[in-house]
Amino acid sequence: MIDIHSTEPGCGTDFTAITTTAQKKDGTYVIAITTTAQKKDGTYVINGEKQFVSLIPEITTYGGGFFVPYNAKGLTPTRFETLGLDIGGMKYDNVEVPDYYLLGEENKGYGVANESFILSRVPLSLVMTATAMRCVEEAMNYMKQREAFGRPIAAFGMMQHQLADTLANLEAARWLAYYAGWVTDQYLKGNATLEQVADAGAKAKLFASKYAIQALHDVLEWYGALGLTTEIDMHMAFRSMRMITVAEGTMNAMRIIIAMNALGREYIPWRWVPKK
Amino acid sequence: MIDIHSTEPGCGTDFTAITTTAQKKDGTYVIAITTTAQKKDGTYVINGEKQFVSLIPEITTYGGGFFVPYNAKGLTPTRFETLGLDIGGMKYDNVEVPDYYLLGEENKGYGVANESFILSRVPLSLVMTATAMRCVEEAMNYMKQREAFGRPIAAFGMMQHQLADTLANLEAARWLAYYAGWVTDQYLKGNATLEQVADAGAKAKLFASKYAIQALHDVLEWYGALGLTTEIDMHMAFRSMRMITVAEGTMNAMRIIIAMNALGREYIPWRWVPKK
Amino acid sequence: MIDIHSTEPGCGTDFTAITTTAQKKDGTYVIAITTTAQKKDGTYVINGEKQFVSLIPEITTYGGGFFVPYNAKGLTPTRFETLGLDIGGMKYDNVEVPDYYLLGEENKGYGVANESFILSRVPLSLVMTATAMRCVEEAMNYMKQREAFGRPIAAFGMMQHQLADTLANLEAARWLAYYAGWVTDQYLKGNATLEQVADAGAKAKLFASKYAIQALHDVLEWYGALGLTTEIDMHMAFRSMRMITVAEGTMNAMRIIIAMNALGREYIPWRWVPKK
Amino acid sequence: MIDIHSTEPGCGTDFTAITTTAQKKDGTYVIAITTTAQKKDGTYVINGEKQFVSLIPEITTYGGGFFVPYNAKGLTPTRFETLGLDIGGMKYDNVEVPDYYLLGEENKGYGVANESFILSRVPLSLVMTATAMRCVEEAMNYMKQREAFGRPIAAFGMMQHQLADTLANLEAARWLAYYAGWVTDQYLKGNATLEQVADAGAKAKLFASKYAIQALHDVLEWYGALGLTTEIDMHMAFRSMRMITVAEGTMNAMRIIIAMNALGREYIPWRWVPKK
Ligand SMILES: Cc1cc2nc3c(=O)[nH]c(=O)nc-3n(C[C@H](O)[C@H](O)[C@H](O)COP(=O)(O)OP(=O)(O)OC[C@H]3O[C@@H](n4cnc5c(N)ncnc54)[C@H](O)[C@@H]3O)c2cc1C
Ligand SMILES: Cc1cc2nc3c(=O)[nH]c(=O)nc-3n(C[C@H](O)[C@H](O)[C@H](O)COP(=O)(O)OP(=O)(O)OC[C@H]3O[C@@H](n4cnc5c(N)ncnc54)[C@H](O)[C@@H]3O)c2cc1C
Ligand SMILES: Cc1cc2nc3c(=O)[nH]c(=O)nc-3n(C[C@H](O)[C@H](O)[C@H](O)COP(=O)(O)OP(=O)(O)OC[C@H]3O[C@@H](n4cnc5c(N)ncnc54)[C@H](O)[C@@H]3O)c2cc1C
Ligand SMILES: Cc1cc2nc3c(=O)[nH]c(=O)nc-3n(C[C@H](O)[C@H](O)[C@H](O)COP(=O)(O)OP(=O)(O)OC[C@H]3O[C@@H](n4cnc5c(N)ncnc54)[C@H](O)[C@@H]3O)c2cc1C
Repeated sequence: MIDIHSTEPGCGTDFTAITTTAQKKDGTYVIAITTTAQKKDGTYVINGEKQFVSLIPEITTYGGGFFVPYNAKGLTPTRFETLGLDIGGMKYDNVEVPDYYLLGEENKGYGVANESFILSRVPLSLVMTATAMRCVEEAMNYMKQREAFGRPIAAFGMMQHQLADTLANLEAARWLAYYAGWVTDQYLKGNATLEQVADAGAKAKLFASKYAIQALHDVLEWYGALGLTTEIDMHMAFRSMRMITVAEGTMNAMRIIIAMNALGREYIPWRWVPKK
Repeated sequence: MIDIHSTEPGCGTDFTAITTTAQKKDGTYVIAITTTAQKKDGTYVINGEKQFVSLIPEITTYGGGFFVPYNAKGLTPTRFETLGLDIGGMKYDNVEVPDYYLLGEENKGYGVANESFILSRVPLSLVMTATAMRCVEEAMNYMKQREAFGRPIAAFGMMQHQLADTLANLEAARWLAYYAGWVTDQYLKGNATLEQVADAGAKAKLFASKYAIQALHDVLEWYGALGLTTEIDMHMAFRSMRMITVAEGTMNAMRIIIAMNALGREYIPWRWVPKK
Repeated sequence: MIDIHSTEPGCGTDFTAITTTAQKKDGTYVIAITTTAQKKDGTYVINGEKQFVSLIPEITTYGGGFFVPYNAKGLTPTRFETLGLDIGGMKYDNVEVPDYYLLGEENKGYGVANESFILSRVPLSLVMTATAMRCVEEAMNYMKQREAFGRPIAAFGMMQHQLADTLANLEAARWLAYYAGWVTDQYLKGNATLEQVADAGAKAKLFASKYAIQALHDVLEWYGALGLTTEIDMHMAFRSMRMITVAEGTMNAMRIIIAMNALGREYIPWRWVPKK
Repeated sequence: MIDIHSTEPGCGTDFTAITTTAQKKDGTYVIAITTTAQKKDGTYVINGEKQFVSLIPEITTYGGGFFVPYNAKGLTPTRFETLGLDIGGMKYDNVEVPDYYLLGEENKGYGVANESFILSRVPLSLVMTATAMRCVEEAMNYMKQREAFGRPIAAFGMMQHQLADTLANLEAARWLAYYAGWVTDQYLKGNATLEQVADAGAKAKLFASKYAIQALHDVLEWYGALGLTTEIDMHMAFRSMRMITVAEGTMNAMRIIIAMNALGREYIPWRWVPKK
């Protein structure tokens, strides 16, 4: 299993602010990241700290702009308990890797990471949509069995109101994600730009984040008190879903990408400067 | 131009309740509709009333289970002012049409009408989505020109928040409608059932109804006071949109179809009976 | 600490279906509840099962239509792990209580329980609103410290959009709950009916359920990945909140009460019968 | 009837940008507004243009920083057709008023206008809430009469779902507006600051704008095709409502005020500057 390590205590959405630096012995290298990696005799020395990296407990190897084996000397895993999808961090204390462990070219780390984020949003959107759909299907079975006022709760108009809206939303999330997947495919074939993938992927992820979460809400409501117990897994599905809305970019990060593509870079609110 | 006349003063969503009857001279025919049509010597005599039929002022010919020329004797158009898409009604007072004006077979009128409703929901969903998208594009131009606090209003985070959500919603509406269009195509080729078209079309129309309306709301907000004036056409687009949410079935009608397909006919709330 | 035990495996929203029965030796008593309580020589014998009762691990005494000491013979607590507010159940196996432990009069249990549910919704609404408000305040501090793109994230328009809507919603929730509290006070003074308390309380609880949950969602988004970790307590606040939306009646239960008060009992959907 | 004239073609939300200037003969006066008013021999001469002023067709007198009779020489009303609440503009072409027509003190016009805007938001919130409530009540009567599938549409769970949420929202809007009214009262008695009134009023107006509009949407849905016709007045209520959301400050303007009060002026996004 391979992980990407980009988030740091001082940077997340704004991942241009990462500070882990990788240095060769005789110079500072790669993007400005706090973990420093110095090269001495064909070896990179990495220092710094990463956090919120997915699946820390299961990984065996991982990399950032570098491929770094999990058991490298000087590497200390840190852990955030999340009661859902596990995320954790890593401290790099004079971790040494041979120079052929560098991924891509020096000073191109940002591009590699950025592309990986963009491409990953389609599968994440589908994970959210499919998980939500699976939970809704389970809940539909429950609705048909659970009775109140002499009939299955599935046979109440209010329940069907919520169910119908949820099913329409998830179907929309699915096709929006498929579309983004198709744009990705076009990009890989050279027929679309990375900006177009970024735009479609941001729409798919923003949309799935909102409506998969909404669907889980409804599912929890439909189960009544049972939905919050460890008897059923819906509350854990909810937690994982909530986390995925943050992974590879928060909902606001998606909004920024969508608006930037629609209006043009010059309208980015915090960069806007009056024309002279 | 050809119109479908199904809605009556006493029936809409529940269009099995239509009462216009078509009789042949020697018997009652077709579905139970209040307008009676009696057949006498190869002629149908139609009586009754229809309302809310689209585009009444422009039609030249129209039909229900029958094709009836606009200038047939005994036919009186009624009009509802709607300040947007025009809808109107028709009174049938002993209107006579030759028997070869019958559409399809006798007693099959319900099926013809039902299929026409189902098939029409995809284009209506696309009309709503495309109209909303067009208004958003106009509004984006306005946002870039209109200034407040020393910058174009496009360069405010709050505006971009609303814009990004709207663009993601409309993109989702578009792909959901395309999907429903594809299912329709499969149906016409014999690879899908009418129920599948009904389900996909209901999802597309429910979704487009909600989010096209929402988009127009945002557009009106973005224009400030200008959005409500006759200077720009946005408020008329809003009206038309609002009407289309009702045409060929209200939002609740779509919810009923979606829930029925997902859960099974036996869970229709007002038909549910305890098992013995 | 005192608990109310009304929910059973086969009944929740529809709490007229409870089956725990309390019998005196020589007859069946109280409301039709499955736990039977027979009276023999001035003692009630209770049998049955209760579930989803709040705070089971902490209670020392508890009651239903009866006051039953926590350490009564024949009483077995069951537990649902909920990772938030704990709820649990109780099995009653020939539990004996003296007849002066009966709360109120025999056969009046339903009324007592119903009134207690109605009166409890105002405090629950305030708990949800106040908890959400506290989390928002914490988050506001975080927003001012956490930086991205060279400024505190509090200084982004998108963040303020979400914050402003949340603050308005919670302020509304607060005043709606105060109003319901005032109606309760009027009821206790004999100036308002229990129906009026039920109506105001249902509105307050439905509203708080929706918008406190929504507020926590936004709070979790504002914290980024941190919001899902055990570093901060926001995710636990979210869980508790989600549970309280179910306690003393789900959101749909509140909707049923509100609609019934507005339209009249004869419009309850599953009871509607055509007039003759 | 008296009107306030503050909005101009180049300014609305950002009303510090108004340019109508009022000059005395020997100097420029009052706030920087484009209409210039020069004083010559105890007379102010006003030039400029105002737009979107409420109820232009009915006013008899009106004022800005000045009281100006409706029939003053040089004053030309302009009109925007709005098909709802009428709004219009005024051109000031060397309009002369005696100096005792000045409202308040010179150079204090901004404060007067700002306070008037703030105080007016409570009544506007109540107008929106009360109008929406009235429409909902009308619609409830309609629901009880209109039948589909053999029962009044009031007896469908989906309709009650929408009705219950709407009633809870409007009750919340009402109490939030009452609270803002109480804060206003405290301000007039010297017990609250204008900032507190601005904050409470902005919450009340933002909330009422969102949920009164939402209520009208539901009302229009409940009426089916009838809701869009001139047979009933619901669509006109909708239009007026939509306009009031803009009057005295748009929804975003309310959000800006709320966020500014909650976080502090230094976090206003477009004014944020890095600390040195
Ligand atoms: C389950 C999970 C798995 C992850 N896996 C990995 C991984 O494998 N490798 C890795 O490197 N990272 C990983 N991450 C980290 C993830 O990329 C970051 O958490 C995410 O980008 C957000 O950063 P942050 O948490 O620091 O939030 P912040 O950047 O601090 O954001 C805080 C809040 O501010 C908002 N905000 C920030 N800037 C703006 C702006 N300009 N305008 C408006 N709002 C703004 C955000 O939307 C958010 O609501 C993972 C995270 C999670 C939850
Ligand atoms: C622009 C426009 C064009 C149209 N064009 C045509 C045309 O060309 N030909 C034609 O025949 N008709 C046409 N119609 C009519 C249209 O099909 C009907 O208006 C529509 O089906 C709704 O019927 P209704 O207006 O009678 O509403 P009703 O059926 O009276 O519904 C009223 C409300 O009750 C709700 N409701 C009804 N039953 C239920 C239920 N079981 N559960 C929950 N809620 C329920 C509805 O959702 C709605 O909110 C048109 C309508 C419009 C607006
Ligand atoms: C934290 C917590 C504390 C609690 N504390 C106590 C306590 O101290 N004592 C006690 O006795 N009980 C307690 N309860 C139980 C609580 O009262 C019930 O869980 C609640 O009333 C719902 O019942 P249920 O879970 O059986 O859901 P169900 O009744 O099975 O409902 C399942 C779903 O069906 C919906 N539904 C049901 N009927 C209809 C209808 N007619 N129309 C539309 N939708 C419908 C519901 O809204 C829900 O979404 C507690 C619950 C929780 C979560
Ligand atoms: C019915 C009605 C009655 C009125 N009556 C009067 C009256 O009697 N007298 C009078 O003087 N005026 C009156 N007005 C005018 C009213 O005050 C203005 O229309 C209102 O303040 C908005 O200004 P604008 O229309 O120029 O919109 P703009 O200021 O151009 O705003 C356009 C859009 O940009 C958004 N926006 C602006 N700045 C920001 C920002 N910093 N961040 C995020 N979003 C932003 C707005 O929210 C809006 O969505 C009335 C308006 C109406 C509709």
